Amino acid sequence: MRKSNLILGAIAGIFLLAGCGRLDSSTSTTTTAKNSSSGYRTTGQTSDSEYQGVIKDGKYLTSKARGVGVDQNSDNLLNLKSFESGLTQLSKNQFSTSNYIFQEGQLLSSSTIENWLARKSKNNQDGLNPEDNGQTDANKRNPIYIQQIEEQDYMKEKNGKMSLAGITIGIGMNAKDYYQKESYGATYTTDISEDKMIAEGKIAAAKVLQRLRSTSGVSADTPILIGMFKQAPNDSLVGGSFYAYTLVKNGQVISTWNNINIKSYVFPSTSSSSVPNDNDETSFESFKKQVQNFFPNLAGVTAQGQYKNKSLQGMHVNITTQFYSETEITSFTQYLAQAAKNYLPSGIPIDITVKGSDGTVQSFLSRQAKDSSYYTHVFSSY
Amino acid sequence: MRKSNLILGAIAGIFLLAGCGRLDSSTSTTTTAKNSSSGYRTTGQTSDSEYQGVIKDGKYLTSKARGVGVDQNSDNLLNLKSFESGLTQLSKNQFSTSNYIFQEGQLLSSSTIENWLARKSKNNQDGLNPEDNGQTDANKRNPIYIQQIEEQDYMKEKNGKMSLAGITIGIGMNAKDYYQKESYGATYTTDISEDKMIAEGKIAAAKVLQRLRSTSGVSADTPILIGMFKQAPNDSLVGGSFYAYTLVKNGQVISTWNNINIKSYVFPSTSSSSVPNDNDETSFESFKKQVQNFFPNLAGVTAQGQYKNKSLQGMHVNITTQFYSETEITSFTQYLAQAAKNYLPSGIPIDITVKGSDGTVQSFLSRQAKDSSYYTHVFSSY
Repeated sequence: MRKSNLILGAIAGIFLLAGCGRLDSSTSTTTTAKNSSSGYRTTGQTSDSEYQGVIKDGKYLTSKARGVGVDQNSDNLLNLKSFESGLTQLSKNQFSTSNYIFQEGQLLSSSTIENWLARKSKNNQDGLNPEDNGQTDANKRNPIYIQQIEEQDYMKEKNGKMSLAGITIGIGMNAKDYYQKESYGATYTTDISEDKMIAEGKIAAAKVLQRLRSTSGVSADTPILIGMFKQAPNDSLVGGSFYAYTLVKNGQVISTWNNINIKSYVFPSTSSSSVPNDNDETSFESFKKQVQNFFPNLAGVTAQGQYKNKSLQGMHVNITTQFYSETEITSFTQYLAQAAKNYLPSGIPIDITVKGSDGTVQSFLSRQAKDSSYYTHVFSSY
Repeated sequence: MRKSNLILGAIAGIFLLAGCGRLDSSTSTTTTAKNSSSGYRTTGQTSDSEYQGVIKDGKYLTSKARGVGVDQNSDNLLNLKSFESGLTQLSKNQFSTSNYIFQEGQLLSSSTIENWLARKSKNNQDGLNPEDNGQTDANKRNPIYIQQIEEQDYMKEKNGKMSLAGITIGIGMNAKDYYQKESYGATYTTDISEDKMIAEGKIAAAKVLQRLRSTSGVSADTPILIGMFKQAPNDSLVGGSFYAYTLVKNGQVISTWNNINIKSYVFPSTSSSSVPNDNDETSFESFKKQVQNFFPNLAGVTAQGQYKNKSLQGMHVNITTQFYSETEITSFTQYLAQAAKNYLPSGIPIDITVKGSDGTVQSFLSRQAKDSSYYTHVFSSY
């Protein structure tokens, strides 16, 4: 059992950079929750590829800035999902799931992060975004470059005591800054060039690093990983993606940035957005054609795919159709398991969620990269 | 692989009578879709414990009475779910999933079933429910005894041809008949005694059997399974349950009825409804206590349990709480896998669905009867 989990973990490792926040294991609960002498426990692990989380005095130790991300991404919550799962995946490359325990950020509070994300002003010298220059014209105003910041803590346990052994900071950068000229007025957009976004991101990252190093509880040699994320537009059907990261082992200076070529796409392709690899689009279209006419009422079939360069790393397929009976859902799910196996790309993790026309999840299918067949589940009721 | 599926099938068989419509398999897609010479195909099978369904000319062969069940159960759709999954489970005992292929009912059309379910009248001699006697008083009027009827066909394949080899009929009986004295008026209830319900059900079943035997396509020796279902009240949080069945191998006469002691309950128990076994309630309460305080905002924890006599056959657990981040959902799901393993009853199939406060499914966990640990899945997005 242990061995097969190791293999699973190794295979999962290949897809770590995919930023796919899967917790998907048909294997057993491998690690039991730990108890420490200081009122800390961990959640236990269901897969070697996931971190254990920290429980304090019987409750989950939530982030000091809990909920800030929701506010910052209210126009497109997909950005929050991508940001958080991508940040965790980035972290896994530096802080292994077997040696580190995940803790929600405890250093930066809601008010700290809110001040950092606000514009710089007389009352807010900590603002990472530029001062308001009084302009409202899209090209004359100072846009908001930095949309969100999230902290994750990576802990090590020794002699029943938990201590901070690594920090990850995600910084979400705007490529488009949406703004109103007056309260409740129309929404305008300032476009930010790629170069400008990257340059502003580097400046912000340097400041964040410096502030973090001088924060109580952070030592001079605590490794700090910083991931730079490009926010997707408000109307995007996939979230944004990480474009660069740096690991600062000690000190306050960033020496090098590493590029990340990961991006999410929507299937089917449209005239304005097509996936990097035509073969994947062909596979998806074949699958869609098999599926959408299964019932007299047409099924809607879309997907999100994540690419590393031109290589597909994983897919989330969404199917919506109207059902009249449980037997229909069961038959459809079995049919999907076959169609997905026959038509969708192999060797990558794929999950398929089937919803009724009212949005209720009816069934779901999931396959890990190493598997050929799908796990299936029909949501039932007594 | 084949062998482990057989074992899985055998174990699943123990729970066939549980009426639990699970399609839950971490194993592979065992059977490939079949092609016949007459334009028929099958859906393929994801588990030995599920039927393959019939596809005709590339489309799923839907029921001739598609959608009637939704209309008949619009006041409590849980009745439809229980009715359909229970009927399929009943059928599995007579028509094995390995020898028979499931086909949605093709003999009785929507209009036929609607006429049968209506009151008998000058224009509708086929009505199985009594004539309107003009009374509106709850105890003087003739109630609607028969609420729903569903047909399932069980097929065998020989030399590339599919033929009818068994029929299952479910008849849903009212214990309470809800009615209005005037259109859009208040709702009144006629209570129907258990004895009366059973007696009226037997009369209806005999008529249905006779009519079915004389239907074109049904031979004198086609086995007909009839299952009698007691509808749950409109305000019930679980659906109704099957209380009796009969298998008529040939001819038009029912000789014996077999009782079924299966019933669904809600956890936690209330003053007016408690589960048959106190130990299960204690287990559930312990689990609930572990779970509901995990986050600062309280989680709602309820469950449906199905009993055969005093023995719990399976549980569907529903958890609702507010999340702010994907890491919270991941940690919560891992914690649940441990808590469920430690506190919920073992040796039965259990699934747990975790929803956000807006009703969106966030994650789900599932364990088959034979397993000790849970399969977990967090719904993610790119």
